[in-house]
Amino acid sequence: MVGGSVPVYDEIILSTALMNNVLNFDSVSGILSYQTGCVLESLSLYLEDRNYIMPLDLGAKGSCHIGGNVATNAGGLRLLLLCVCICGKVLADGRALDCLATLRKDNTGYDLKQLFIGSEGTLGVITTVTILGPRSPIYDACNVFLLFEQLLQTFQRCRGMLGEIFSAFEFLDRECTRTHTHRFSNAFELNFLVIIKTSGSNPTHDEEKLHQFLEAMTSSQLIDGTVATEEAKIKALWSLRERVTEALTHDGFTYKYDISLPIERIYQLVTDMREHLGDRAKSVVGYGHVGKTVCLCVSVSFYPDLLASIEPFVYEWTARFQGSISAEHGLGLKKRNYIYYSKASLAVALMGNIKTMLDPKGILNPYKTLPDDLQ
Amino acid sequence: MVGGSVPVYDEIILSTALMNNVLNFDSVSGILSYQTGCVLESLSLYLEDRNYIMPLDLGAKGSCHIGGNVATNAGGLRLLLLCVCICGKVLADGRALDCLATLRKDNTGYDLKQLFIGSEGTLGVITTVTILGPRSPIYDACNVFLLFEQLLQTFQRCRGMLGEIFSAFEFLDRECTRTHTHRFSNAFELNFLVIIKTSGSNPTHDEEKLHQFLEAMTSSQLIDGTVATEEAKIKALWSLRERVTEALTHDGFTYKYDISLPIERIYQLVTDMREHLGDRAKSVVGYGHVGKTVCLCVSVSFYPDLLASIEPFVYEWTARFQGSISAEHGLGLKKRNYIYYSKASLAVALMGNIKTMLDPKGILNPYKTLPDDLQ
Repeated sequence: MVGGSVPVYDEIILSTALMNNVLNFDSVSGILSYQTGCVLESLSLYLEDRNYIMPLDLGAKGSCHIGGNVATNAGGLRLLLLCVCICGKVLADGRALDCLATLRKDNTGYDLKQLFIGSEGTLGVITTVTILGPRSPIYDACNVFLLFEQLLQTFQRCRGMLGEIFSAFEFLDRECTRTHTHRFSNAFELNFLVIIKTSGSNPTHDEEKLHQFLEAMTSSQLIDGTVATEEAKIKALWSLRERVTEALTHDGFTYKYDISLPIERIYQLVTDMREHLGDRAKSVVGYGHVGKTVCLCVSVSFYPDLLASIEPFVYEWTARFQGSISAEHGLGLKKRNYIYYSKASLAVALMGNIKTMLDPKGILNPYKTLPDDLQ
Repeated sequence: MVGGSVPVYDEIILSTALMNNVLNFDSVSGILSYQTGCVLESLSLYLEDRNYIMPLDLGAKGSCHIGGNVATNAGGLRLLLLCVCICGKVLADGRALDCLATLRKDNTGYDLKQLFIGSEGTLGVITTVTILGPRSPIYDACNVFLLFEQLLQTFQRCRGMLGEIFSAFEFLDRECTRTHTHRFSNAFELNFLVIIKTSGSNPTHDEEKLHQFLEAMTSSQLIDGTVATEEAKIKALWSLRERVTEALTHDGFTYKYDISLPIERIYQLVTDMREHLGDRAKSVVGYGHVGKTVCLCVSVSFYPDLLASIEPFVYEWTARFQGSISAEHGLGLKKRNYIYYSKASLAVALMGNIKTMLDPKGILNPYKTLPDDLQ
């Protein structure tokens, strides 16, 4: 999406695929240490066998290396869980930097590990990761329903009524669900398709909470919906969300943005962009996690110069409302020169100083993350 | 405890007491922005009025400034909640560094704010903080019981049976509870006094979970205990934990350490220290949060040279088991030269480089955090 991991000129590619061992697992605390070439899904399965779960989940889980997830700070679909990552790294000069690897709380000096999380490989090579896995929920449920009202009220109602079992809230707008809505009878009226996931420890209690919530929704906003508690059905519903990207490719070329915005603006960017582009775009769709990120996708088939209408409009709009122009995928190659829309010049200058300090020859993932004036 | 905020030679003291305004609160997301001179308890009350809670809680909440909590990364008693802090700072040269202040997710470059959290004021002055407050639980309960078996099994049983409503687990050892145990009939047999807090959204469900848990405990390890659900009674039980420090002062001079250890070693330091010191110490007590920190207190009245027997023993022991010599209170003045017990030389050298980069004249909280060879 931003070309953070793609070589562009003269780079040497370093593969961590063979560094794929689990190093240690503590069954009391749920703390797992592993090498960074492990594939996310294989770690998820490893923990599930031991009654724990990974604190992150992505559509690309079957192929992505966990080292890449940490280097890009990719959080993905499991939005409400605590995640602690503590890393070993190799610096540009080859020396190994070992941070405390098994602890939840350490207050001895500056938090160096955090500098490397999300640095896209520009400060060091992450070699090992230690992560705190939450306990496996006893009871998972997944609800899909069509929403006619505003997203925010529904999100607030979820937090209030589902409380501590509320574990994910994903939305897809009407445009985005064209390929899915034949499953529902009154789909033509929907504003949003919402997927809510709950995870709890007591099936009876969880079912009661869900029942009360759905009853309240039916009496107001919900028109049509389905609840799944079997694993296969949960997976099928969840794939509605995971496969959006794939579905959009049928529309032809797509410009894609992952934007983080204050919660009250979460969908306004999509409607404003739709109005701004008018019939120049084939479609403008939005989906994402409320409270975290909206993915904006603009599909185009007839207007080759559409990009000039989208950018810098999308970045200026985001900056105006104090959003982040990259909530998930980092800056990579393509977005690095737009960094000033989300970061003050002083902050960018400090990043440059840190890069110079840790990688004075600029050999680690060159041409990425930092803007041209700091390369 | 470590003298992190105490002037020692020629420092100028900067008070943030008048910077005590709430700047913004978003009632949908629970995100609160405020100046750093706010007192923790007043922010807690502000949020409670709006059905949210602060994600941290400390014994010193009535007097501590939130800026100090962030600068020392003090987490305190509320151990299982997600906390997001995003800060504005003033650097050593007076320039203001503004990080994105309202967002949960931002992946545009390096995570600079995290460098300042826990840096004890040595890198900059934190001026504003934005924090994500969790929703107020509908139902709080507090259980105190006496434990005859091992801590870890009980902790695991809590995680399993109380699940998502389990919000805090504090333990006090027998030595530590001398002043409290008259409340319980079989106190003379106890190993630990454990205080468990639950917070949930459905009183009926929470009570059922608690009931099942207590029933299981009674049939095995629990001998005597009490459950509180009224606010006044919860406060009274919780104060057993909060007032330990005060109670210990009656023993005379006390050496105090806040150590973080891998969970399976959490109490072993106390028993090993007890054996190591023998009758040279008046008492050796331990209390803390399982999964996070153990506070080790050694009281002395007869052996003025006891310190030489405690240190470096306590630090060497901690380093051997990959613990942190400061889980909560930072390094300050007193512990800074012990940093190498918890951090590799390369990590300490990098901290020195970061300090030089951000505060080249060394004017921000001098003589603190970094060891002598980097001052």
